[in-house]
Amino acid sequence: MTNADLIARRDRTLGAGAPLFYREPLHIVRGEGVRLFDVDGRAYVDMYNNVPCVGHAHPRVVEAIARQQATLNVHSRYLHEGVIAFAERLTALHGPGIESVVFSCSGTEANEVALRMARFATGRHGIVCTDATYHGNNALVGALNGVGERHPRAIRAFSFPQTFRPVAPAASSQALTDAYLERLDRAIAELEAEGSGLAALIVCPIFANEGLPDVPPGFMARAAARVRAAGGLVIADEVQAGYGRTGQWWGSGVAGFTPDIVVTGKPMGAGLPLAATAASRDLVETFRRETRYFNTFASSPLQAAAGRAVLDIIEDEGLIANAATVGAALKAALKARQDRSPGVGDVRGVGLFIGLEMVDGDGAPDREAAVDVVNRLKDLGFLTSNAGAFGNVVKIRPPLVFAQADADAFLAAWDLVSAARG
Amino acid sequence: MTNADLIARRDRTLGAGAPLFYREPLHIVRGEGVRLFDVDGRAYVDMYNNVPCVGHAHPRVVEAIARQQATLNVHSRYLHEGVIAFAERLTALHGPGIESVVFSCSGTEANEVALRMARFATGRHGIVCTDATYHGNNALVGALNGVGERHPRAIRAFSFPQTFRPVAPAASSQALTDAYLERLDRAIAELEAEGSGLAALIVCPIFANEGLPDVPPGFMARAAARVRAAGGLVIADEVQAGYGRTGQWWGSGVAGFTPDIVVTGKPMGAGLPLAATAASRDLVETFRRETRYFNTFASSPLQAAAGRAVLDIIEDEGLIANAATVGAALKAALKARQDRSPGVGDVRGVGLFIGLEMVDGDGAPDREAAVDVVNRLKDLGFLTSNAGAFGNVVKIRPPLVFAQADADAFLAAWDLVSAARG
Repeated sequence: MTNADLIARRDRTLGAGAPLFYREPLHIVRGEGVRLFDVDGRAYVDMYNNVPCVGHAHPRVVEAIARQQATLNVHSRYLHEGVIAFAERLTALHGPGIESVVFSCSGTEANEVALRMARFATGRHGIVCTDATYHGNNALVGALNGVGERHPRAIRAFSFPQTFRPVAPAASSQALTDAYLERLDRAIAELEAEGSGLAALIVCPIFANEGLPDVPPGFMARAAARVRAAGGLVIADEVQAGYGRTGQWWGSGVAGFTPDIVVTGKPMGAGLPLAATAASRDLVETFRRETRYFNTFASSPLQAAAGRAVLDIIEDEGLIANAATVGAALKAALKARQDRSPGVGDVRGVGLFIGLEMVDGDGAPDREAAVDVVNRLKDLGFLTSNAGAFGNVVKIRPPLVFAQADADAFLAAWDLVSAARG
Repeated sequence: MTNADLIARRDRTLGAGAPLFYREPLHIVRGEGVRLFDVDGRAYVDMYNNVPCVGHAHPRVVEAIARQQATLNVHSRYLHEGVIAFAERLTALHGPGIESVVFSCSGTEANEVALRMARFATGRHGIVCTDATYHGNNALVGALNGVGERHPRAIRAFSFPQTFRPVAPAASSQALTDAYLERLDRAIAELEAEGSGLAALIVCPIFANEGLPDVPPGFMARAAARVRAAGGLVIADEVQAGYGRTGQWWGSGVAGFTPDIVVTGKPMGAGLPLAATAASRDLVETFRRETRYFNTFASSPLQAAAGRAVLDIIEDEGLIANAATVGAALKAALKARQDRSPGVGDVRGVGLFIGLEMVDGDGAPDREAAVDVVNRLKDLGFLTSNAGAFGNVVKIRPPLVFAQADADAFLAAWDLVSAARG
């Protein structure tokens, strides 16, 4: 079957418009470790997928899932020690204020739980997010996506913090921090003026969807203090930033703040739908008291088995240290090449999450260049994508098993792309 | 570890208030076929769980999941034939108007997709549901739950159709049908008057959460015609009613109407989070055009593998015929016992979904009696629950592998409970 035939069948059964990557889509049939293989047996180095964080088809995940599905997989209204043990293990990875968990099946669901938890706990409705964020795809959480002039009631966005295209000319980096804090203050003040008040600030600690900006110094710690002074809670959406991606367990550690509510998702189950909203016991119990939240497929023994296997592997294989080491080396190597990489205006990121900002001759965002680079890299066997507020950031976010040898191979391909585009 | 210890750990890690079944909760550690086993090795006949529709721990599901997780489990922006084949197979189970599918991870997500699809397609916002329904737990879908006096904007509820506690005294069953249709008309008229207009009617075809009422004759076919005459679409929420539960593939077949959009969930993946919104290609493409819907864990090769295994088993093991035969016999046996079953005011249902309406001496709903019966049955080794608009309906909804021998054993236990309560 040709790609064209498969696409025709897909358009018929999933409807045309179901998103596909790359100008010439890939027909992937197998994965192993950091590699994906297409129907013709061609190998690609996966530098995009964070869900299979322990590598594709990890045998310990397969075994844990198979064993649990063969033993018991049922909803959470019976007692099950595995679910409790997973929750204990997950909360232990956080600071002392994070004690209890609400499990769900997707980052969207977990972010919605977080927002509702904050609203119940504060008795207020207002949510502040950034103006180029993404926290999920449903009605409540989707209302946060790319909030611009529309200003839905009880939601305000502030300009995401960055040093590359600063919101205002600033005499110093501290002055730039102040400029972003002023915008945050304004969003809070607007929510108070409209009567919503402030329930929470929700951010990805590394501002992944915004394009992994370098953030003015001290911004998040001061922003969190500001939010708390206004009676609000701080939600860290660690769906992309957490689970070792940055070379630390949590993006909030990199960003230098302590969240009240932590949301995790994508990598938790190695592809099994699994997400969590973790907070103090008091916050979680307030949420449970206000809404008898029940989620058919969540808090299941299967989720717990997959979730514990992923944590085991991350720890046993030293994947966080790997993310720190290989990520730092790759970023440094790309930075060193910046001057001879046509169109690369900035190299940013932390751990195994790196963004290459593509710009045109005037320094303006160049989405087409990012798309071009992503497709050229794909043709050379390396899978990336583009992201960011303008879609002009080449996004590098491989499984955490990505090794130095993979980085070296990628750099050789990168040099070829740079030469071809030069 | 005692139950008390486990509950204390659970309260700490999941927060007190995470729902549990039964006065004395069960600590279930294993499942096989129609049986669940507690930590002491005691067997219970599962007469509650519809998610493991093919039976707990079915080896073909385990094998399909393990094989696919060991091969490839990745998001849907690469081509994958397994996902397409599953969508083809699923749509083929429906009538000719259902051609394409949007996969998601829960009935909540799939119902939200359906509502948004209807709104995009009609350009109108109004949704009609019943006044004792449940379609999910998030902001948009949860707004439909138990809509009473509150009347959130763009949502109206009508009294769910039933013959047991009819909304009005009626000279004939046709007059009762008319009385409910009038209430539906009024809901539509109110949506039009407020400017929302009618986008869709959403119902569970067998009104499961309402308590499995016997519906006045011809109601749903005439209701669907009414909705279409007003320019709206008909959404069948088959999360509970579908997949053979009624002795037919779809509850809409039992209810006698043809939906425009079909939502499926719980039994689809035998516990793997999996749901779908199926409709005409035109409706699905309208949805995809209006919103670049993407769901990280949905439309995955893993979902497709589990989903196809479940369909294989339902077909190969003749589970739909089993549901029809065993369900009809069980219902007839319970009906025959009604006079000597204290507190049972009505026996209803279809296929392997049976409701026993518990009433007090005045015929009023008796929730406490239902809770008492459910707990006594549990003590005798049979797991049920209570449901319905008043929580007074004993809900019997076993895996579809529930056999006549299981029904016979249950009836013996039922007689013991009746005698003890007599």
